Amino acid sequence: MKLRKSERIGAIVKVLSDNPNKIFTLGYFTEKFDTAKSTLSEDISVVKNVFEKLELGKVITISGASGGIKFIPMFTKNQAIAKIEEMCEKIVNPDRKLVGGFLYMNDIISSPDIAEAVGEIFASVIDYKDADYVVTIEAKGIPIAMMTAKAMNLPLIIVRKNAMITEGPSLAINYLSSTSGKIQSMNLPRRAIKQGSKVILVDDFMRAGGTLKGMEDLMREFDAKVLDRAVLIELECEKNASDYFSLMTLKDSKDDTQIEISKNFFERFK
Amino acid sequence: MKLRKSERIGAIVKVLSDNPNKIFTLGYFTEKFDTAKSTLSEDISVVKNVFEKLELGKVITISGASGGIKFIPMFTKNQAIAKIEEMCEKIVNPDRKLVGGFLYMNDIISSPDIAEAVGEIFASVIDYKDADYVVTIEAKGIPIAMMTAKAMNLPLIIVRKNAMITEGPSLAINYLSSTSGKIQSMNLPRRAIKQGSKVILVDDFMRAGGTLKGMEDLMREFDAKVLDRAVLIELECEKNASDYFSLMTLKDSKDDTQIEISKNFFERFK
Repeated sequence: MKLRKSERIGAIVKVLSDNPNKIFTLGYFTEKFDTAKSTLSEDISVVKNVFEKLELGKVITISGASGGIKFIPMFTKNQAIAKIEEMCEKIVNPDRKLVGGFLYMNDIISSPDIAEAVGEIFASVIDYKDADYVVTIEAKGIPIAMMTAKAMNLPLIIVRKNAMITEGPSLAINYLSSTSGKIQSMNLPRRAIKQGSKVILVDDFMRAGGTLKGMEDLMREFDAKVLDRAVLIELECEKNASDYFSLMTLKDSKDDTQIEISKNFFERFK
Repeated sequence: MKLRKSERIGAIVKVLSDNPNKIFTLGYFTEKFDTAKSTLSEDISVVKNVFEKLELGKVITISGASGGIKFIPMFTKNQAIAKIEEMCEKIVNPDRKLVGGFLYMNDIISSPDIAEAVGEIFASVIDYKDADYVVTIEAKGIPIAMMTAKAMNLPLIIVRKNAMITEGPSLAINYLSSTSGKIQSMNLPRRAIKQGSKVILVDDFMRAGGTLKGMEDLMREFDAKVLDRAVLIELECEKNASDYFSLMTLKDSKDDTQIEISKNFFERFK
């Protein structure tokens, strides 16, 4: 297919941007566009410029036999802060208050736009180059974990709260849920994760950290190493977990609810 | 910001493609690029060409006061068939067979690439112009429903199997799950869906159709109208549901497992 220069640029942007962290060889494009390598190299430097000037992430060249170009989604610190502040504003709304100090947030955390932004912000501050999987637990964290997996170009693993007859042999652990105050179990089919894998844990909400610790224990059963732990919103309270970060911290008192960008998120940008 | 023509094209493609079904006014771009309206109009016709020539979906102009341009994700019939055949090949693998005739498919249906393709294929054959929400039930259908919601630019609603203390007053119904053979319940917070809404139902797997019927009943409690029902894989067996379509039909026998593109999907393209 013969395309004009500006059409080739548009096509390259579409392909790269639809496939974060996937490497495309130069040959893929020269063949698709029936064009010379030198022409394509010029096109690619224009594409790199577009992403850089408009701060839309990075396009990088990987050299070597399995080399090519790929797009890395990346929020700048300022873009991330602006987006998180926008979320904070939506969340701190008196209408969202429920009995027991809970806040109704389903609409926010399962909005495709917001989930995608969260996934890309996580991908901007997590070192995932050695990771094999993104792991989350059902159900409300799945949208943001899905978008994190997409941004990182990794498979998504969903830990279940109840063993399913349709998924084969599984490994299970028990954990103390700080939301319900009860011992609960979580499990995952044996075949879901290869032994010796490296994983990133993602969850939507964190109270004391019981669920996150449960996921950590479960990963140990799979002989998998947890590289990082990302949480969307944490409640300000005593924690049983460390080495995690969150985007927002919810300060809850009887009269007033406040939410702000988490300190441990800012530390990610030092 | 001053950009060259080919850079503007790249930037417009990125913005549109990241935001399916969202309208951008011409003013948004003329301001962003500090360029004349006539120049931008030429840019946009190049962008439209790129999408059309490479069959990457459609970019359309909407006239009127709230007008502008938007990108509509769209698989052609051939692209959809090729993608579904690729999925069929992955699924029909003897290693996936579990006790009870079930197939292990978690890795496939929660892969970001596949979920995104499924979402865009659903968006290509469903008329969603009047829809207010995409509705699914936890947990395994969430990735494909999320990507469907993203393609359609609609909020995603996740029906729960257990009422959550953290989500406020809810409406519940009972249904007969044909997978477990048991009466189960599903519920949704009252505030999740506005009265009089129109919804698209999405699920990953369908046996007799009990779950889909349950979701339909639940929507009735919300005074919501179901416009369409999309399923990723259905089992060939007697159904309690109609007016749905699936991408794949699984034919299960003791010795042999086959999967093929569903007849009711082909009908969508007549």
